Amino acid sequence: MRPDLSPSRPFRLRRPQLVIAIVGATGAVGKELLRILEERRFAVAELRLLASPRSAGRRLDFAGEELPVEEVSETALDGVDLALFSAGSGTARRWAPRAVRAGAVVIDNSSAFRLDPAVPLVVPEINPDAIGSHSGIIANPNCAAIVALMALWPIYRRNRVRRVILATYQSASGAGAAAVEELRETTRAFLDGRSFAPQRLPHVYAFNLFSHDSAIDPATGYNGEETKVINETRKILDDPDIRVGVTCVRVPVLRAHSVAATVECEWPVDPDMARGWLSDASGLRLVDDQAHNYFPMPVDASGGDEVLVGRIRRDLSDPSGHSLALFATGDQLRKGAALNAVQIAERLLP
Amino acid sequence: MRPDLSPSRPFRLRRPQLVIAIVGATGAVGKELLRILEERRFAVAELRLLASPRSAGRRLDFAGEELPVEEVSETALDGVDLALFSAGSGTARRWAPRAVRAGAVVIDNSSAFRLDPAVPLVVPEINPDAIGSHSGIIANPNCAAIVALMALWPIYRRNRVRRVILATYQSASGAGAAAVEELRETTRAFLDGRSFAPQRLPHVYAFNLFSHDSAIDPATGYNGEETKVINETRKILDDPDIRVGVTCVRVPVLRAHSVAATVECEWPVDPDMARGWLSDASGLRLVDDQAHNYFPMPVDASGGDEVLVGRIRRDLSDPSGHSLALFATGDQLRKGAALNAVQIAERLLP
Repeated sequence: MRPDLSPSRPFRLRRPQLVIAIVGATGAVGKELLRILEERRFAVAELRLLASPRSAGRRLDFAGEELPVEEVSETALDGVDLALFSAGSGTARRWAPRAVRAGAVVIDNSSAFRLDPAVPLVVPEINPDAIGSHSGIIANPNCAAIVALMALWPIYRRNRVRRVILATYQSASGAGAAAVEELRETTRAFLDGRSFAPQRLPHVYAFNLFSHDSAIDPATGYNGEETKVINETRKILDDPDIRVGVTCVRVPVLRAHSVAATVECEWPVDPDMARGWLSDASGLRLVDDQAHNYFPMPVDASGGDEVLVGRIRRDLSDPSGHSLALFATGDQLRKGAALNAVQIAERLLP
Repeated sequence: MRPDLSPSRPFRLRRPQLVIAIVGATGAVGKELLRILEERRFAVAELRLLASPRSAGRRLDFAGEELPVEEVSETALDGVDLALFSAGSGTARRWAPRAVRAGAVVIDNSSAFRLDPAVPLVVPEINPDAIGSHSGIIANPNCAAIVALMALWPIYRRNRVRRVILATYQSASGAGAAAVEELRETTRAFLDGRSFAPQRLPHVYAFNLFSHDSAIDPATGYNGEETKVINETRKILDDPDIRVGVTCVRVPVLRAHSVAATVECEWPVDPDMARGWLSDASGLRLVDDQAHNYFPMPVDASGGDEVLVGRIRRDLSDPSGHSLALFATGDQLRKGAALNAVQIAERLLP
């Protein structure tokens, strides 16, 4: 079911104070959305916290007030200006078109509409102009793709990246709040010598790692997460020719994704020059202290807004001098999800 | 100081029952050496456990006997046939040449002699013939290099690998027993909400990861571990032209190293064919169940002898069809160190 993407949709949110709905408010990303709207003093006239029937009736704190969580419904979406969706693809497919018909602009964190040609897929630091073409729904990209692209973009825009090979180190938060809790609880059980079984995730997580648990496409051998990174990279960069190889791995880290990248550029590229480009880029922080062996780490990225990038050096496997290696880390719940969505919303404000 | 590598050194150990010394017996690799010698019923006539003065006086179990740990000395090395060194490079440089002069063959797990042209650097499944050229000392390779090369070799020997890009996921055990304990203890403190400071390692390890803590070479930007992987890959494969890019990262895993590899071959290569080569290879186990999303994991590799390999698929960033991606995991203390050393020793037996 496609949303009603009529060309009469508003480009910008016209009211200075907005009626905002968060769909999926009780999830890990939903809670982070609440925190970020509050931190950034977003123009909220009314905030509706929506969720599945299972979570309805709970209360969440926003700016010192306890707000009730309601079930998603036509009525609950009535009069909403901005709907931030942080639920699954099924919920987004069902409710995002109705929110649009009710007059809202939707920013959806699921993969439901990301590859729809009528839906912009946006990282505001990279392709803010794409927002202008929306017809009611704007998609928030995959979290691993956001972290990787934040680090690649300052290079790409000066010296087009033709090929990138990524290996990710993804945190529990990408699988939701229950996975974060499972990592903590099974790790505690392991340390106490108690037996435990994985529940939310398919494999043991305590002091272990595993290939990303999204389904493998038998035609390619790539899992769903890897396929998202490849396709979304092409769409965000508007570059169908960029060649992307990627391996997505879950590591026992709570809430920041990391990525090791090998980047081949159109022209020869110098690490010092790239370091300059990266240190000037908005939303990025260069953490590249070779003398003290201090580089991007999840513990430093967690809770922050910036993606950290470092380990900038030549790719020694490419003698042509066109390639660099680097390492980046970003908070999965913030820049990887909630913060990016709110940054898109900020661009819609008058 | 170079060892006395006189050409009269014996190629093989001549006695069926050997006097064996373990230098560095109380370390993580030393203890694993004891376990593996016992498991494999190695031909031990006498076992001498040697260590630094700090550890002398302790006792370790071997085959039901409590053996004393002595300080390394000329006397302690007297009459030794086989000396397994699992101490640092400094200890190896000081004592390995003396062990050789006392008549022993030395298998050294440190990096002290690995790049010495007179010293073979051996993974028995890959270059067993190199053992024959030893002059008293044989070097055991870096643990990350062993795990990566075990997975690459079955491809390389049929379709020469010209370029490989590696990202590692390395365990605490590579930094020694104290690092394993630090990972456990700081993780427990984190879960209990207690404060803690890193001791053995330079960074927070609980639910974190960091670039490998070996010193960065300012000339290249690569750390010591990465430089070892590059140089040792070339030496073990006897291929100075293979192009290697590598990023080494420590992850909060106790004792197995993993690696994501992108491999470019001389000729076009088919994933199914590579899967066949890998499933036939000695010391490797193919774990590549796409339907159930089951691939190599540290929890399955830990305590075992085999390196696990899977996620075999085309590298989608190379449209020429010459490249594959794969993922491998191996026990760092066993195949990455102690087991490989004992396998070398077994090849020296009559």
